[in-house]
Amino acid sequence: MKVAVVGLGLIGGSVALDLKARGFASEVVGVDASAENVRIALELDIIRDIRPLVEAVAGADLVVLAIPVGAMIRVLPEILDAIPATATVTDMGSTKVKVCAAIADHPKRAQFVPSHPMAGTENSGPSAAKSNLFDRKIAVICDHGSVAPSHRARVEAMYVALGMRLVFMTPAEHDVHTAFVSHLSHVSSFVLANTVLEKEKDVTAIFDLAGGGFESTVRLAKSSPEMWGPILEQNRDNIADALGTYIRQLQEFHSALVAGDDGKMRTIMEDAGRIRRVLSGLGTRVERRS
Amino acid sequence: MKVAVVGLGLIGGSVALDLKARGFASEVVGVDASAENVRIALELDIIRDIRPLVEAVAGADLVVLAIPVGAMIRVLPEILDAIPATATVTDMGSTKVKVCAAIADHPKRAQFVPSHPMAGTENSGPSAAKSNLFDRKIAVICDHGSVAPSHRARVEAMYVALGMRLVFMTPAEHDVHTAFVSHLSHVSSFVLANTVLEKEKDVTAIFDLAGGGFESTVRLAKSSPEMWGPILEQNRDNIADALGTYIRQLQEFHSALVAGDDGKMRTIMEDAGRIRRVLSGLGTRVERRS
Repeated sequence: MKVAVVGLGLIGGSVALDLKARGFASEVVGVDASAENVRIALELDIIRDIRPLVEAVAGADLVVLAIPVGAMIRVLPEILDAIPATATVTDMGSTKVKVCAAIADHPKRAQFVPSHPMAGTENSGPSAAKSNLFDRKIAVICDHGSVAPSHRARVEAMYVALGMRLVFMTPAEHDVHTAFVSHLSHVSSFVLANTVLEKEKDVTAIFDLAGGGFESTVRLAKSSPEMWGPILEQNRDNIADALGTYIRQLQEFHSALVAGDDGKMRTIMEDAGRIRRVLSGLGTRVERRS
Repeated sequence: MKVAVVGLGLIGGSVALDLKARGFASEVVGVDASAENVRIALELDIIRDIRPLVEAVAGADLVVLAIPVGAMIRVLPEILDAIPATATVTDMGSTKVKVCAAIADHPKRAQFVPSHPMAGTENSGPSAAKSNLFDRKIAVICDHGSVAPSHRARVEAMYVALGMRLVFMTPAEHDVHTAFVSHLSHVSSFVLANTVLEKEKDVTAIFDLAGGGFESTVRLAKSSPEMWGPILEQNRDNIADALGTYIRQLQEFHSALVAGDDGKMRTIMEDAGRIRRVLSGLGTRVERRS
């Protein structure tokens, strides 16, 4: 199968590596608007064949979009215009409602399979791409009746080739759940980093004390603003809801702390411990749902 | 040197393993109020010699306290009463002002070296203990003129044997910095876990989407309430200050999000990216300050 990967960053670069190495793709063509990304992707042998967007997608059986969700909305209609009637397009963005709305009335709507592989790191760009990034992770397919079965099957086969397990949600369900489970974590991390940086003008104290748990909670603050700006814009209402809930619960904790209500703080910490069961399950989860 | 380790959890157990393996301790005697902890520590060969508290510390050259900071304040005076005039005591707790105040007027004050190794995991108990836990991490020594040089030198030698680098702060400085850099991270993680657990009544969605960054930000929510309750109590004012600052910054972000002020969100994310320099330095830091 001929695959065109649009966007050669962490996700697109990793997809290109694995689809080729695992034999799913007979050819991989790469597209990136950044000359620097192209240079690095070629140098790291992530991709060998670079082409302009329209040429790349016009010759592909499967087009994978791994670009920021703001660019996604602008570029997707153009890509659908350019692809043959037999080709399939999928995106790998973190928001789903807006991208689906952007091409709801496009004559080739049935060829577009919205999806979201739940994998990544806090790093970005082609130099962050790596093999096996997706193994044993979850891919969300947001088919809600608008996708032709053959195209959906092709995207599912790609994710299975990447080693992923499939789950299914509507675009609206996806955007609500990711607001709480993924997007809120990023906001909390960005703001936590700022809170500590503002307090600790001399970063020496951060260096010295970061072994006390700080590092893991602010890891996501390294995430790219170019990627996260459009996610926040497109999932604004759900993230505002999640963040509002988080702030209210922090205020409750703050009140208990100031009032010396140590029993309440204990209850909150014990409740939070239920997450242990969820996290321990992540490493051992075996069932495949569909 | 004969070392008594009081508290055989993650920290105490790991100390016992390394001090013996590295030849710093000729003998290690263990103390733990929990029969279950004692059983596990013996079974895992973390310790071979278990004794009652007073007997253990009366026969030791160096006493290491690795118990929750609430118990620390109650037990430390009793331990100072029981040790010989040549013995040294150090604690490994996450708060310093209250423990120093608790023995400020004790006749053996000069034998107590307050310290805090910045190492650990979100797991607890002797089964979480492991070798090399402290290697290349930072140990904070909170000597502020009340410690005799020979006792301070003994504790510094112990941390060097554990592979740690030393930094020095007053107890008050320590408690302010740890509130922002360590304790706040734990509160944010506890509350974030609760926020998501409350929203996602069916934890399936958390399982499915946790690959999107959630796992690292809530890792600390697995931390023991038994350990963290007393830390929150003893460092209440500093943590309330840190948490209040964090909440205000989250409210600013929330306002920008709701108002559609994407430029402001972008600025906040870019500011947060400065943490990249701090975190990347953590792996490569070589200087030793004193």
